[in-house]
Amino acid sequence: MSSLKENGITVIEMAGVEPNPKLTFVREAVKVAKQNNVEFILAVGGGSVLDSCKYTALGTFHDQDVWDLVMGKAPVKGALPVGVILTHSAAGSEMSNSAVITNMELNLKKGISTEFNRCKFAICNPELTYSVSKYQTACGIVDMMTHTIERYFTVCEDTPLTDGIAEALLRGIIDAGKVAVENPTDYNARATLMWASSLAHNGLTACGRENYLVVHQIEHAVSGEFDSVAHGAGLAVLFPAWGKYVYKYNVKRFAQFGRNVWGVREQDDEKAAVLGIEQMAKYFSEIGMPSSLREFGIPKESIPRLADLCTYGKTRTIKSYIPLGEKEITDILNLCY
Amino acid sequence: MSSLKENGITVIEMAGVEPNPKLTFVREAVKVAKQNNVEFILAVGGGSVLDSCKYTALGTFHDQDVWDLVMGKAPVKGALPVGVILTHSAAGSEMSNSAVITNMELNLKKGISTEFNRCKFAICNPELTYSVSKYQTACGIVDMMTHTIERYFTVCEDTPLTDGIAEALLRGIIDAGKVAVENPTDYNARATLMWASSLAHNGLTACGRENYLVVHQIEHAVSGEFDSVAHGAGLAVLFPAWGKYVYKYNVKRFAQFGRNVWGVREQDDEKAAVLGIEQMAKYFSEIGMPSSLREFGIPKESIPRLADLCTYGKTRTIKSYIPLGEKEITDILNLCY
Repeated sequence: MSSLKENGITVIEMAGVEPNPKLTFVREAVKVAKQNNVEFILAVGGGSVLDSCKYTALGTFHDQDVWDLVMGKAPVKGALPVGVILTHSAAGSEMSNSAVITNMELNLKKGISTEFNRCKFAICNPELTYSVSKYQTACGIVDMMTHTIERYFTVCEDTPLTDGIAEALLRGIIDAGKVAVENPTDYNARATLMWASSLAHNGLTACGRENYLVVHQIEHAVSGEFDSVAHGAGLAVLFPAWGKYVYKYNVKRFAQFGRNVWGVREQDDEKAAVLGIEQMAKYFSEIGMPSSLREFGIPKESIPRLADLCTYGKTRTIKSYIPLGEKEITDILNLCY
Repeated sequence: MSSLKENGITVIEMAGVEPNPKLTFVREAVKVAKQNNVEFILAVGGGSVLDSCKYTALGTFHDQDVWDLVMGKAPVKGALPVGVILTHSAAGSEMSNSAVITNMELNLKKGISTEFNRCKFAICNPELTYSVSKYQTACGIVDMMTHTIERYFTVCEDTPLTDGIAEALLRGIIDAGKVAVENPTDYNARATLMWASSLAHNGLTACGRENYLVVHQIEHAVSGEFDSVAHGAGLAVLFPAWGKYVYKYNVKRFAQFGRNVWGVREQDDEKAAVLGIEQMAKYFSEIGMPSSLREFGIPKESIPRLADLCTYGKTRTIKSYIPLGEKEITDILNLCY
């Protein structure tokens, strides 16, 4: 704040962003920005702060309400410029074209992807992440890993270069993640995670591939309904369950994942596939992540409600190696206990 | 041309770019651009066209002569915007901040690196490279590989993520390169090479590392003096020689290169290092590249002149695992016969 003021920049501070960033906060921020003719938004924080700022930038540019933009009722035509000082390695929002927001009235977490969501700059100093707790560090590790894994498993073949980059990224995160969780002030580990979080979500790992996030959509239903669930922790529970459920529809791909990411040496594809998924679950557990929805205090009775949220009231299936409808999502959620 | 004209864009065509792009051409192009108040430059071609366009864009923006910018006699302050339609996968100029030019009067090939050299867009359609000859395809493969290898071997440690990406890039190029040389219309191979050429030189493989090109500087002396030498072919001869000469100053790094890029399974580091360099030489040869300066018709008697050019008349050494001065460059050039 003092450095901005010393440079003669008028600053209006807007504190109070919550995890799983909220539409109510953004609406308030848009009001403040419009009243004060704000010209530029500086996001200082992690993914929730960045996404709140991106929505504020979108909302301030438009006359329509932000939620109308999210729901496609009004076209996205521009945004205020956003700059970033990153303090948490996780969401990759600093280089991505996307942003996610939660409407608490509807218990609905949704995103917008648009080039107007690209930040003008991002200052990424790994030392600013030294104070991130072990738990939040681990949540971030899962988030950036799964950004990469989702794209690795979209229905798409023949992208060896993108595969190789994704596998290198995952191995880098796995190694650095262990170190950072143990020793939060290890510069190299923190730097690797910070750069990896950006590369995992900026489009690089989707080049030549379809680009949609399957498990993230299921997780958004979970943390949209249960606000105490940290996004990364929810993903850590859901990914192994999703893997166990769908691997048999592309055993070869999951075997490649096991071998090239997790160092599995098993010759048999089916066994290598399963071992890879198990290693992933074990790693998430080792860095302190939960392995069951029960650990969040989510009762098993919530599953129908969650499956309903995921499928927008049984009106859609999510594309994966098989389409995931209400039945399949229910099965996957059952595997999370 | 017709699509530009149909869209009402006034176009002045400037044909005649030569390989190892020439200062004389650029000076002529700058004159034409200034006379016609050109506002935008569209580069349609490969690295030589792109670099000629970048220099024309720089020269048109400034009052000073382009060579004064190259020699640092005038500061680089801007450039006309440049767009690219890429027709050859090699130099990576479409995403890089650099451009190289040859002053034939001085037999001197030199570059400028500046953010003003970044193109505004690049249309990269692999099908446009189907008609590139086997020899030029191979030259391009060597160029993009060595852009990656140079940065992999700068004096710098502890960048596992960048290492992993560089190794994945090299493996991707090696595999796709073989296919594209055999079957020039293989879309996937051509696409991999096209994207790899951009990633190899856009900064990604230098992230966290020092960023200077050692062997490229030696090669610039060779193709600056002997204009018939294609840049990639010159690099194919020089790289194995450079490797054999310097590997003993960082055996561990060269062993990692052998194992992670070339699949060498040898446990002993020294042997793995040598095997990696040999595999690289073998690969260059397999895709049709020369393995000796003699094959270009360069007489061994030229070595002192080349070493002199490289060291700007013995006034500098090139930074590598050991500083490369006149003696070392002479030794390396001798290994090229």
